[in-house]
Amino acid sequence: MNEFDYIDKYFRPLTNKFAINLKNDAAIFNQKSSFDLIISTDTLCEGIHFFGNENPADIAKKSLRVNLSDMASMGAKPIFYNLALSIPKIKASQFIPKFAKGLQDDQEIFGIKLIGGDLTSSLKHINITITIFGETVKGKSISRDGAKIGNYLYVSGILGLSKIGLDNFNSNSKEFEESKRKYLIPQPRVDLGIELKNIANSMIDISDGLIQDATHLAKNSKLTVELNLCKIPLPNIKNLDRKLILDSALYGGDDYELLFSCDNSHESLVEQLSDKMNLKLTKIGVFKEFKKGFLKFKNNTSKPKNSYLHF
Amino acid sequence: MNEFDYIDKYFRPLTNKFAINLKNDAAIFNQKSSFDLIISTDTLCEGIHFFGNENPADIAKKSLRVNLSDMASMGAKPIFYNLALSIPKIKASQFIPKFAKGLQDDQEIFGIKLIGGDLTSSLKHINITITIFGETVKGKSISRDGAKIGNYLYVSGILGLSKIGLDNFNSNSKEFEESKRKYLIPQPRVDLGIELKNIANSMIDISDGLIQDATHLAKNSKLTVELNLCKIPLPNIKNLDRKLILDSALYGGDDYELLFSCDNSHESLVEQLSDKMNLKLTKIGVFKEFKKGFLKFKNNTSKPKNSYLHF
Repeated sequence: MNEFDYIDKYFRPLTNKFAINLKNDAAIFNQKSSFDLIISTDTLCEGIHFFGNENPADIAKKSLRVNLSDMASMGAKPIFYNLALSIPKIKASQFIPKFAKGLQDDQEIFGIKLIGGDLTSSLKHINITITIFGETVKGKSISRDGAKIGNYLYVSGILGLSKIGLDNFNSNSKEFEESKRKYLIPQPRVDLGIELKNIANSMIDISDGLIQDATHLAKNSKLTVELNLCKIPLPNIKNLDRKLILDSALYGGDDYELLFSCDNSHESLVEQLSDKMNLKLTKIGVFKEFKKGFLKFKNNTSKPKNSYLHF
Repeated sequence: MNEFDYIDKYFRPLTNKFAINLKNDAAIFNQKSSFDLIISTDTLCEGIHFFGNENPADIAKKSLRVNLSDMASMGAKPIFYNLALSIPKIKASQFIPKFAKGLQDDQEIFGIKLIGGDLTSSLKHINITITIFGETVKGKSISRDGAKIGNYLYVSGILGLSKIGLDNFNSNSKEFEESKRKYLIPQPRVDLGIELKNIANSMIDISDGLIQDATHLAKNSKLTVELNLCKIPLPNIKNLDRKLILDSALYGGDDYELLFSCDNSHESLVEQLSDKMNLKLTKIGVFKEFKKGFLKFKNNTSKPKNSYLHF
């Protein structure tokens, strides 16, 4: 099969009308001007973001979900995506059919379609770049810079699981099943992001660890965020030291939970939303006037470390 | 420098307001609904689409220009792009500053800006994926499927130079300077694409060789295109066999000239446009009712071969 055959057989069935059946050089989209188009790109590289020997369907899901998480963090409804897949010739026939199946499954779950992209060979490693598109009512997306003094900092779900899953990826213990699953296939909080549009005034998804992403919110809002380490929602994993679990939450990546600020008068709204969505939303900090650093720990003089950096 | 430093120093200065200073997870764009947004993606992989030892500024320009060429082929005015760059740690500090300078130079030439993207490390090779965005008046983009029986097929510029440049890349002969330049830095026909919006009824840019791309037009229009091989505009290169030059035009890639069909009554309009733009536009074929294959040669019984295929 050549690239046109792969596209015909595996990718064309994933498209919607904006792709014009992939028969042009480009997709065509017309949007009502009462909506904003929200555009984001995330790349996954073999050997950096994934091992390469995972099920290709899981790699596809992770690629889509890290992008969906960016839509969630803007409070946007995802609508479509395009895909650039570079893969060594020798891997294509095994990888592409399963990869496309993974995309298809998640397209159904998240209500999105493919609109175009590029399929090329690469010399050695797989590279997957997805650009995702979402929409919000004009002017209603949630940025990173809206936190105010006195606002509370909330986080969804539980933190650290994904890093623990990565660190114990080769373990066969049942204890790590949930965390390995979370590392492989994160759960983007798309519905939560949309629900938060009238509650949160700044938001980010945690892709690089709580410390780094909380710092982004504080820095963009020109404030200091004070984290209460006792409140961080952590998983219960026997035989793992609490310090190690906490570190995974603070500095590990790939959690894809939402981190947001809101006015302290919204506390009960957040609690109601948590009940409605059956999803833990935990108050873990408060924003204060900027003093010395963008992030500090409550009642704890230790200094935050750096999270994962690519360079 | 870590990725945030690189982004701050080299990429933030390339952005426009839609990037919101790259401080969010996504760009935000609001378009008048009287316009269509045209979206296309092209990837360049080290070792496949470029050698890797070229000047990074030239690699940047090629990356942008192959995408700009897709806008040209739709008759769209390019407005902005996003960039996913994956690069091994060890290459980043040498590569990124020059690469960003190449982007900046071409941004000025083509009137476009960066709106976002992703910068990650990769294990071994550089991968550059650009998604480019353009606009046309609603419904006015040019597709690949509009050719009618009796329409003429035109091509811009001269074909085959890029493949000759690639084949002679290590030659120091002056004779190959122009072709090497064309291989390194193609010239997307953006202005021509926009001018053709009331003339052409189907269009494609030649990225995979004349034969393959002419076949795309015929196939999508469900017709047979008859190419007149005597009319193909070829470069004059001494000491190179005409047969080899013709093969480079027919099957070589990376020319990025525009190939379009139009009603035969538009012949004088095309000539006027050629004069106005000081750009050769050559009539090289005619569309006929489908018979046997999508492409045949006039007065020549030889069969077209395949162009480059990734898989």
